[in-house]
Amino acid sequence: MKYYAVIVAGGSGNRMQSSVAKQFLLLDGKPLLMHTIEAFNRCPLNPEILLVLNIHQHSYWEELCAVHNFDIYHQVIKGGEQRFHSVKNGLRAITGKGIVAVHDAVRPLVSSDLILRSYRNAEELGNCIPCIPPSDSARRLLNDGTNEALSRNELTLVQTPQTFNVDVLKKAYQVPFRNEFTDDASVAEYSGHNIYLIEGERKNIKITYPEDLEIAAIFMKNRN
Amino acid sequence: MKYYAVIVAGGSGNRMQSSVAKQFLLLDGKPLLMHTIEAFNRCPLNPEILLVLNIHQHSYWEELCAVHNFDIYHQVIKGGEQRFHSVKNGLRAITGKGIVAVHDAVRPLVSSDLILRSYRNAEELGNCIPCIPPSDSARRLLNDGTNEALSRNELTLVQTPQTFNVDVLKKAYQVPFRNEFTDDASVAEYSGHNIYLIEGERKNIKITYPEDLEIAAIFMKNRN
Repeated sequence: MKYYAVIVAGGSGNRMQSSVAKQFLLLDGKPLLMHTIEAFNRCPLNPEILLVLNIHQHSYWEELCAVHNFDIYHQVIKGGEQRFHSVKNGLRAITGKGIVAVHDAVRPLVSSDLILRSYRNAEELGNCIPCIPPSDSARRLLNDGTNEALSRNELTLVQTPQTFNVDVLKKAYQVPFRNEFTDDASVAEYSGHNIYLIEGERKNIKITYPEDLEIAAIFMKNRN
Repeated sequence: MKYYAVIVAGGSGNRMQSSVAKQFLLLDGKPLLMHTIEAFNRCPLNPEILLVLNIHQHSYWEELCAVHNFDIYHQVIKGGEQRFHSVKNGLRAITGKGIVAVHDAVRPLVSSDLILRSYRNAEELGNCIPCIPPSDSARRLLNDGTNEALSRNELTLVQTPQTFNVDVLKKAYQVPFRNEFTDDASVAEYSGHNIYLIEGERKNIKITYPEDLEIAAIFMKNRN
């Protein structure tokens, strides 16, 4: 069986109050995207790594790799307008069959264990996505401007990697983009697939806001 | 107009892998519950503070206050079996009319601005609760074991303080406990009230897991 990792770097950095795209921010001395790639490179299933990056960042990334002596082999693929189009470009670059994990570039703390469980479960079930229960209560915003309680038991927060049989996910991505496609599970579900949930990791945070980088540094320090 | 703050300390500390209840863990040199009480004490509306605490922790709390020279005046009220019963005990101790903010003891980073906005909005609208949009995608777990995408746009995560007209909330709490009562908004909603949302604060985290304390320390340092 062949394994792939499509690592999607979408961010332009707006919410970080930073002109540097999030995936290039330094964590423990190097761009956090390098930590993300290293996590997949540590996987004993030896996945082929495909990085999807905005075309205007390709030469900058090449420079960063040189500066940091980063030599893990990976293809670099042109990003699209939305995350949806970026993932689609990544999938198009996969020519064979197998299992593909789609992962946010800005989740550098994903563990080897979660990556391995993702591949194994997707191999068995066709797909799987990692989820964690929310710490907070939640409410659903309704169209009429009101809102209603959502039972905490019926809500789960979704992380990446989201892992699928390659053929299944490629086929699911053959539809026009829709606004509700915020992740790969929503795309696959739209094609009629049941989505299987596995246990995520509270530390597998998405670097979104300025403090997230400091939080990630804590998690990384505690892990080492 | 009279203002009240019911600060609810429920935790026994299980999820923190700690034998000390979460509200007593040290943050910046003192029990985090003291930071929470200080936040309400800074409010220019001068709310009357009622702390609801497990009866077995009352003398320990008294000692902590002595050790830390903590002299902000507050009533200490006996906690109940569930958060629901604790809040009910707190409300019972309020004899007059006014506006009451119910706040988790383990959210020490609530800002003065959010507290003031909460009282002002609840005074005008009857109630209000602070919410933030989730960073992650979310899914809804269905009764048949399957799950479905929840649009990120229709989901919001709920914080405290949850602020109400005293009479309204007291009346809402006159029903038997139900499992879906995870916060005050869900109780008030069950009594037929529309809930009004105001903007919460990403830093107003609930100290739930071990690392949350380190995260809170970062937020506190950046604020000072």
